[in-house]
Amino acid sequence: MIDFTFQNPTRIHFGRNALSHLGEEIDRYGKRVLLVYGGGSIKRIGLYDQVMAILADKQAQVWEVGGVQPNPRLSLVYEGIELCREHNVQLVLAVGGGSAIDTAKAIANGACYDGDAWDLFTGKGSNTEVLPLGTVVTIPAAGSEMSNSSVITREEDQCKRGRNTELNFPKFSILNPEYSYSLPPFQTACGVVDIMAHMMERYFTQVENVELTDRMTEGALRTAINNAAIVMQQPENYDARAEIMWTGCLAHNTLFQTGRVGDWASHKIEHELSALYDIAHGAGLAIVFPAWMKYVLPRGGAKKLAQFATRVLDVPEDFGTVEEIAKEGIARLEVFYRSLGLTTTLHENGIGADDFDRMAERACAMAGGVLGAFVPLKPEDCKAIYELAL
Amino acid sequence: MIDFTFQNPTRIHFGRNALSHLGEEIDRYGKRVLLVYGGGSIKRIGLYDQVMAILADKQAQVWEVGGVQPNPRLSLVYEGIELCREHNVQLVLAVGGGSAIDTAKAIANGACYDGDAWDLFTGKGSNTEVLPLGTVVTIPAAGSEMSNSSVITREEDQCKRGRNTELNFPKFSILNPEYSYSLPPFQTACGVVDIMAHMMERYFTQVENVELTDRMTEGALRTAINNAAIVMQQPENYDARAEIMWTGCLAHNTLFQTGRVGDWASHKIEHELSALYDIAHGAGLAIVFPAWMKYVLPRGGAKKLAQFATRVLDVPEDFGTVEEIAKEGIARLEVFYRSLGLTTTLHENGIGADDFDRMAERACAMAGGVLGAFVPLKPEDCKAIYELAL
Repeated sequence: MIDFTFQNPTRIHFGRNALSHLGEEIDRYGKRVLLVYGGGSIKRIGLYDQVMAILADKQAQVWEVGGVQPNPRLSLVYEGIELCREHNVQLVLAVGGGSAIDTAKAIANGACYDGDAWDLFTGKGSNTEVLPLGTVVTIPAAGSEMSNSSVITREEDQCKRGRNTELNFPKFSILNPEYSYSLPPFQTACGVVDIMAHMMERYFTQVENVELTDRMTEGALRTAINNAAIVMQQPENYDARAEIMWTGCLAHNTLFQTGRVGDWASHKIEHELSALYDIAHGAGLAIVFPAWMKYVLPRGGAKKLAQFATRVLDVPEDFGTVEEIAKEGIARLEVFYRSLGLTTTLHENGIGADDFDRMAERACAMAGGVLGAFVPLKPEDCKAIYELAL
Repeated sequence: MIDFTFQNPTRIHFGRNALSHLGEEIDRYGKRVLLVYGGGSIKRIGLYDQVMAILADKQAQVWEVGGVQPNPRLSLVYEGIELCREHNVQLVLAVGGGSAIDTAKAIANGACYDGDAWDLFTGKGSNTEVLPLGTVVTIPAAGSEMSNSSVITREEDQCKRGRNTELNFPKFSILNPEYSYSLPPFQTACGVVDIMAHMMERYFTQVENVELTDRMTEGALRTAINNAAIVMQQPENYDARAEIMWTGCLAHNTLFQTGRVGDWASHKIEHELSALYDIAHGAGLAIVFPAWMKYVLPRGGAKKLAQFATRVLDVPEDFGTVEEIAKEGIARLEVFYRSLGLTTTLHENGIGADDFDRMAERACAMAGGVLGAFVPLKPEDCKAIYELAL
């Protein structure tokens, strides 16, 4: 176990009546509210009206930034910052998934920074104050509702940057599993894959003696797998939706990182895929993660992959050699992804080897040359992983 | 799963160099510090000198409340409050185990309350402000370093009262597993039993569909068991001490309570034992918990006890009926407690049935008549549990 500092101050209100806590949070932080949300889904499920009714009941003044899209854009952030400044906003309230929340985080920080908010993402500038931020979560996937991170894309050059700071922790997040009932199966599946990836990126580490963190993560991975099977069949099963929503929240709040270093190679390898081809993040991870596992297995990864196989995917301990157990675990993970209706190869998505060199170079360049920590990867390794994903 | 609100803002600095963060925390909260600690152990292991050196380096002014004892007393709390008021203390810093921390919590609250600090424990008074509180932990057991609770005893009538409030969360806690190297085996064992009890009191619930919380708790229980076996043999095994210290911290921070109701009958049944006989809390729990399990097993407890047996204590799923699996789990738990050098019966401690009626009455009276939630207990049930513990 390595030394660590852990903190997560976000207050979570979870459950069927979680939204009833919004009023007390308004009392706590202020009645001048900027609402940040995405497309029509929160209106379709009636959540927009419920939130507005509570705000009206509190006699709050509300300004709005709607239309947040996946890979949320800097221009909307600027728009929100202007509104905050012009109207002395006291609380930024995101309603939606990770994109709405990441936009709200960038607005809450940018409103307290005198220069260009993009500076906060490039490292050129920094802030010490932030507007209070609250969230109402509708899509369990990104985990942004309890995380310190925010990722924003500048449209003109498609430059995507993340920023991790404790200023990003929401003051409160409201999670009602019912809001996820209407998520389409594909989006539900992608969310589960993303949630699991947030845990697996931290689980696959060469740091030894992290038993508590390992075992909690393994329990959370099993929970995600078990309940994914249920919600794909029963989209309105409250308890299964609840398990996935709470798992998604803890998956990315850094509890499962305590005492070790994360890897994150698969995320970055997938990012290049999403950037070049129109493929959803979770769908891309279902293709990349097994390929990454196959590549790192004979390069120092067998032991931890075998632990994953036995403890998460029930591969018997006497199944075979450590390598055979590890391989069987990967095979079972692929079977699980496919059971969610996802693909696990590039060719199923009509993607060939044309851009592998460029993608591999870029993935490593974004990481400063070497990618990942579990097994450090250079461009030729990344290329081999893309090839394994064909 | 039931609705819940979860928050835990304490910043944890964990590891061999955790104390190096004390300076930055002093910078954050102030240089007028009240140090609260227990007996000589922090001086014996050199920790007192290390803390004082950091405080001197920061040119902090330090006042001291030493000599905190187990079942910490109200008189010392008053003493600390006086010092805080007289010297405008900015940070209350506890160094030690649960008793030092609980005392520091009571001081930090009492210093911001105009009346008698005991009012805060009886419910007669309340405060909204609290002095910043930090802790340096030497004994993993109580979990007070990341909890919202504080328990204080008023000496004149031996009245013991607890108070749970978010004002009690330490701003930061510093945990270095090396500080626990010198704990005697008996105290180490009692700590492990207490840590496990904090989890088991929350694990045994009739609330269904709490898979994530269950699985994380099961993983943490396994971690405590595995590493207890190591530290009893190798008291200076860093990794095993680290697992127990981190488990002890999470065991009581309410993460493992999310989505369900706790029981706490065993804690209260044990409390009467400690109050009447000179028996350590952890040692008493090793006697009470198996007896409680045997009693609740045929009264609605079999299913969850069987889950505990298979997932935590490796009882095979095909061992027998649900009841047989549950019973085998209890037997294995007793074997584990005894492997730590503890007893699991009252008669081994020279305690007979003389006071059972009075203890059973008091335990239930303290809980308002009915004790526990997993299987609600009346005095006759408590008495039967004491009898099973004979």
